[in-house]
Amino acid sequence: MRCGAGIDARQVDELAINIDPIQAGGRLTADAMKAVIAYGDGYSVCDNCRKPNRLDYITKPPIAEFHRDLASWLNMDAARVVPGARRGFQAVAHTYVNKGDPVLVTSLSHYTEFLAVEDARGIAFEIPDDDRHLITADATAAKIEEVKRESGRVPVLAFIDHVDYQYGNKNDLKSIAKVAHQYDIPVLCNGAYTVGIMPVDGKDLGADFVVGSGHKSMAAPAPSGVLAATAEREKEVFRTTAITGDLTGRKFGIKEPEMMGCTLMGVTLVGMMASFPHVKERVKHFDRELANNRIVTEALRSIDGTSVLSEYPRKHTLTRVDTTASFDTVAQVHKKRGFFLSAALAEKGVVGIIPGATRVWKFNTYGMTTLQAQYLAQVFVDIAAGNGLKIS
Amino acid sequence: MRCGAGIDARQVDELAINIDPIQAGGRLTADAMKAVIAYGDGYSVCDNCRKPNRLDYITKPPIAEFHRDLASWLNMDAARVVPGARRGFQAVAHTYVNKGDPVLVTSLSHYTEFLAVEDARGIAFEIPDDDRHLITADATAAKIEEVKRESGRVPVLAFIDHVDYQYGNKNDLKSIAKVAHQYDIPVLCNGAYTVGIMPVDGKDLGADFVVGSGHKSMAAPAPSGVLAATAEREKEVFRTTAITGDLTGRKFGIKEPEMMGCTLMGVTLVGMMASFPHVKERVKHFDRELANNRIVTEALRSIDGTSVLSEYPRKHTLTRVDTTASFDTVAQVHKKRGFFLSAALAEKGVVGIIPGATRVWKFNTYGMTTLQAQYLAQVFVDIAAGNGLKIS
Repeated sequence: MRCGAGIDARQVDELAINIDPIQAGGRLTADAMKAVIAYGDGYSVCDNCRKPNRLDYITKPPIAEFHRDLASWLNMDAARVVPGARRGFQAVAHTYVNKGDPVLVTSLSHYTEFLAVEDARGIAFEIPDDDRHLITADATAAKIEEVKRESGRVPVLAFIDHVDYQYGNKNDLKSIAKVAHQYDIPVLCNGAYTVGIMPVDGKDLGADFVVGSGHKSMAAPAPSGVLAATAEREKEVFRTTAITGDLTGRKFGIKEPEMMGCTLMGVTLVGMMASFPHVKERVKHFDRELANNRIVTEALRSIDGTSVLSEYPRKHTLTRVDTTASFDTVAQVHKKRGFFLSAALAEKGVVGIIPGATRVWKFNTYGMTTLQAQYLAQVFVDIAAGNGLKIS
Repeated sequence: MRCGAGIDARQVDELAINIDPIQAGGRLTADAMKAVIAYGDGYSVCDNCRKPNRLDYITKPPIAEFHRDLASWLNMDAARVVPGARRGFQAVAHTYVNKGDPVLVTSLSHYTEFLAVEDARGIAFEIPDDDRHLITADATAAKIEEVKRESGRVPVLAFIDHVDYQYGNKNDLKSIAKVAHQYDIPVLCNGAYTVGIMPVDGKDLGADFVVGSGHKSMAAPAPSGVLAATAEREKEVFRTTAITGDLTGRKFGIKEPEMMGCTLMGVTLVGMMASFPHVKERVKHFDRELANNRIVTEALRSIDGTSVLSEYPRKHTLTRVDTTASFDTVAQVHKKRGFFLSAALAEKGVVGIIPGATRVWKFNTYGMTTLQAQYLAQVFVDIAAGNGLKIS
């Protein structure tokens, strides 16, 4: 099937078990799919936009209510939707970071956090992860002191990943935030892998900001996301416009410069909203997701030479494994080389790992049924055994 | 029908003639609707993302080709998709504007252009429109000289609307750009109302940047848009990241900080792409759109006391009218007050003007058939006559 313009209809999640590390939490719910169809048109949520003319004030569809619900669900005081988590990072960085200011990130931070710092003309300082690939409060304190010593400045902002994208490890954000706050450093909790996946309580974590990704973890179309703030920080990042026309004297009401006014005017927002009741429910059952992940991860561990690089037991379904001493030894002699693994998986209806990867790679079991997890576990073991690897 | 979460299915353009000023160019084509259904899932265009891992390098779906086509269609050297025209303004402002720098906008500029200036900490100076509500080269030259005189600085950037959002008037961008370039001021052509609506030749206009809106004028879902640049400016606004991790030494390849890396990862981009062949075709037939607009506008002019505030004859289908001396005289005595007009239109299957507006208001005839335009013209005349207004 084709959609015109040389675009094939995508049927990845319809036809296969998709273990792509970044796609698992973004699959639309059926309600979101319906909403996408009804709100495909540009500016489709603006039919009933009335004064003061801002997206988060629209009551039909219930966008205003959704914003309040989002904030309270994250236990924060205010929330806005943004075109992807990265645009939340950008807004916060741009509010606090001036040219040359030091900003804390981590040695496992996502590139978009670095770009937010760069875009704001700040300088990024990485808090090192420890040998378990976790960011600790102690490492945070040590890094702040190092930055102080070397630059004479305290960092003006800290980007801390709730769960990092490389290992899927869950950091103790609460204790990290406590340290940062001793230096009056506002803390942005990057919840791109947690908001919409597991319960996130911003106040309990001590976050000044919680950022989530709609298309990564909230079953929403791209680009979408959320930026939530405390009452104290809300006034800063969501400050309203102060610019005036020098000639006309025009002012621009309650538009927010860091949001560039309204953000998601159609399908992306309505998709997020339609999925939201399901997302609120699913985070309560993250234990089931971890149980499924364990089925798959244990199967991988049973293949001699395979190790899990992520913390273990897993606290997230995004998992990094090292199969250099297992699948990669097969790749050395297989006629398909490294592609044998993704090819063998595809033959069994499993997609989503990078073709050719047989050393260090990631997968995500989020959203699977237990039956699918059992099937996937068996597939990995069968491929291994079928290629002469030992199973213990 | 409901989409869950209290969201009613939207059926505005299915059930009525929609003359909303900002929605007319954003209605999806049938191909875009198919694409939206197939690419609703988050990160759905990323299945075949390979090194160097940037959205505009993906060949399946043909995103790379689309980017080349977009640039060449606008007669510019490079193009990127962005989450709305406003994010294009933001990227350009952020590249050229430092704190306190003077920036040219116009007395008819959209609020998002002001926000872009504010966000970059610049100061906005408005070029005045003349009594026809047009921005001229002379007024541009005078304003630059005034800014020079009063601030001692030459503006660092000019935002010029190709067609403004208030009157739908078409500015002589070419002569304005010529003046700006005499002062070495880069010119951003705001094509939110033209790119996707009528032919736009960036080089011919002398634009350093052309910005378009997907959801406003390219039959694409929101938020989407395009930022195109000349070869000279491409290196500046699309510069690649230079930041490194102080500890890990990580670099981030060819990601672009002003784009925050990848921009539209799913439904928004694929919707734009699927509509693109239709959009390329429709801009060639803008004369038909103007002919339809004329049918409606002439009918309005035939209602005694009604005047067209936009330039006449129209060069764009977005039109501003003053009915203070016609429909508003009815509103003064009608039991529905100002709401009589939108109610009467709705009864005849016409939606999209602000409920209650009977003085100065805007409509857009874009995308209508001639039959629909004739019907709409008659509806306006009938409502006027039915309420005792004189038709000449």
